[in-house]
Amino acid sequence: MKKKSVTFQDIADYTGFSKTTISRYFNNPDSLTLENQQIIADALTELDYKENKVARILANGRTEYVGIIVPNLFLHYYSEMLNQLLSTYEKYGYKFLVFVGNEKKDVERRYISELLAYQIEGMIILSHTISSRELAEYNIPIVTIEREDRYVCSVNTDNYMGGVQAASLLAKTNCDILIHINSRSSPEVPGYNRIRGFQDTCEENHLAYDIILEDLGSSYEENAQKIEEIFQRVEEKYGGKSKGFFISNDTHANILLNILIRKYGRLPDEYKIVGFDNSPISSEAVIPISTVGQQMEIMAEQAMELLVMQMNERKKRKPVPLTEPIHKIVTPVLIRRATTG
Amino acid sequence: MKKKSVTFQDIADYTGFSKTTISRYFNNPDSLTLENQQIIADALTELDYKENKVARILANGRTEYVGIIVPNLFLHYYSEMLNQLLSTYEKYGYKFLVFVGNEKKDVERRYISELLAYQIEGMIILSHTISSRELAEYNIPIVTIEREDRYVCSVNTDNYMGGVQAASLLAKTNCDILIHINSRSSPEVPGYNRIRGFQDTCEENHLAYDIILEDLGSSYEENAQKIEEIFQRVEEKYGGKSKGFFISNDTHANILLNILIRKYGRLPDEYKIVGFDNSPISSEAVIPISTVGQQMEIMAEQAMELLVMQMNERKKRKPVPLTEPIHKIVTPVLIRRATTG
Repeated sequence: MKKKSVTFQDIADYTGFSKTTISRYFNNPDSLTLENQQIIADALTELDYKENKVARILANGRTEYVGIIVPNLFLHYYSEMLNQLLSTYEKYGYKFLVFVGNEKKDVERRYISELLAYQIEGMIILSHTISSRELAEYNIPIVTIEREDRYVCSVNTDNYMGGVQAASLLAKTNCDILIHINSRSSPEVPGYNRIRGFQDTCEENHLAYDIILEDLGSSYEENAQKIEEIFQRVEEKYGGKSKGFFISNDTHANILLNILIRKYGRLPDEYKIVGFDNSPISSEAVIPISTVGQQMEIMAEQAMELLVMQMNERKKRKPVPLTEPIHKIVTPVLIRRATTG
Repeated sequence: MKKKSVTFQDIADYTGFSKTTISRYFNNPDSLTLENQQIIADALTELDYKENKVARILANGRTEYVGIIVPNLFLHYYSEMLNQLLSTYEKYGYKFLVFVGNEKKDVERRYISELLAYQIEGMIILSHTISSRELAEYNIPIVTIEREDRYVCSVNTDNYMGGVQAASLLAKTNCDILIHINSRSSPEVPGYNRIRGFQDTCEENHLAYDIILEDLGSSYEENAQKIEEIFQRVEEKYGGKSKGFFISNDTHANILLNILIRKYGRLPDEYKIVGFDNSPISSEAVIPISTVGQQMEIMAEQAMELLVMQMNERKKRKPVPLTEPIHKIVTPVLIRRATTG
């Protein structure tokens, strides 16, 4: 069923260009005029040229495949970050194998080992299940985003600054008490610093505060139920006081906002809400939610830059491995919307 | 830099099993006891066995890669359908190359031609840009979901039934007028039948109705602005009448719901809303939205079944191509929530 392959020589004969020119068309097309690019493109159609990339992979080890592992797609942050990462195809040409981990560590390991067997060139990891020490042992270019990253390269938001921004914004609203709701996390996770930034700002400004750290579950329904419970407790404990909430992410901030709107028909003045991420739900909510914006487009761009740099190094005749993982930090941007008055 | 390959013989020697047993471990692991699977798995780690799948691709043409093309990820329907498709990895072992088209037809074509050069085994197409006639010419297994599908296999919701369900539910609320808001689409698109199902039900039951078909734009912001404009016009035209809205999808239904809640602090009795899809936003909205549920888990499952069937056929010594594309129809499920009283 296989057709006879068309060679560079065939294309050169057909177009009258040299083989060098044909080669340049494939490897550096911009070095040719648009007109000549078109002549060669037309010739390829005429000759029914099918580039056999699998054969090329064996020859030079370039698959142009990158694996992306996200923990889930129900948190709007992950679907938007995935969107931004996939959009880099136009710039870099890398194609993405996407996997949703759903906290199944063994399935995730199996998936990664399959990707490695196919000689993918690198991985971008957003899931939290596998330690960076284990990831580093895979010995391929890796960039993590917003997760524990001690032994691998990463791109993270300046989470401490984010916590400071959120607390400072809430402080200006003169709430009686500032309340931070978040999952429990370890100090090694970048998001942990949100808690520290919030706490330090409250301490320095002598603001009353409460930090509520709880396991919020691993599905939207569990998240919603937990936040409803926390809200009931907070209402009992701080009845009559005005409350400024800083919530771990926009999906959860939206849950709290909806509880309040259902109860009061509007967001009462005694409640202020700041989310985190600037994921789509923050602007799609019934009232647009103030949020600490992760600059996802920039983060996706920097993650790819950092990955491409490592992948290109490996293609050199004498690759020089990084002596230390590189950690890039992106400053968050405070976005004021309707939930902070 | 390449290590000497570890062969089945090496693994057999190391474990004391026969080569046949080792082969079974790779091709049908469940035929071995868990204990023996573990012994072989441990041996692979010890021997640092790396299966070289690229070499296998050349040998038998199996890449185990499938391309998925979605039009965008901001419509919650697409991110949820993507989630369901990716989740089939555990069952089928196929790995997915994901691309977001964003209506850039040329980039989408280039992406597909790259995937074909890498010998992917099949494609699942949700984007609308490339006609099914052109898709069929790629001559590889394809399944489309909810788009024009004349020349390729597809899985679609019974959209006519969905329109009937929505209109029937709204009819029971005794609204003065039933209003359907949708994008303009061609009769070849499965979603077109929602309009017909709605219209026929209104006609048969002598219900007053209005069908508003407009280009709603191609981003969330454009959608929101268009729906706000339509809402203003509807308010002027049907002031004083109770209105039952059937909206093209849940993302758009949520936009309308939010407009009403911001205006009235609650959903007034004179307004009823039914969305379409049962995508996550319908239950995450400020008031849970009644919707015609596409059974996305079943649709993803059937799409993979239909694709795997075609892909397996191609691996036979004498493949028999389909004489006609197969179109599977999945019945939608009406989900009553708070927006229909």
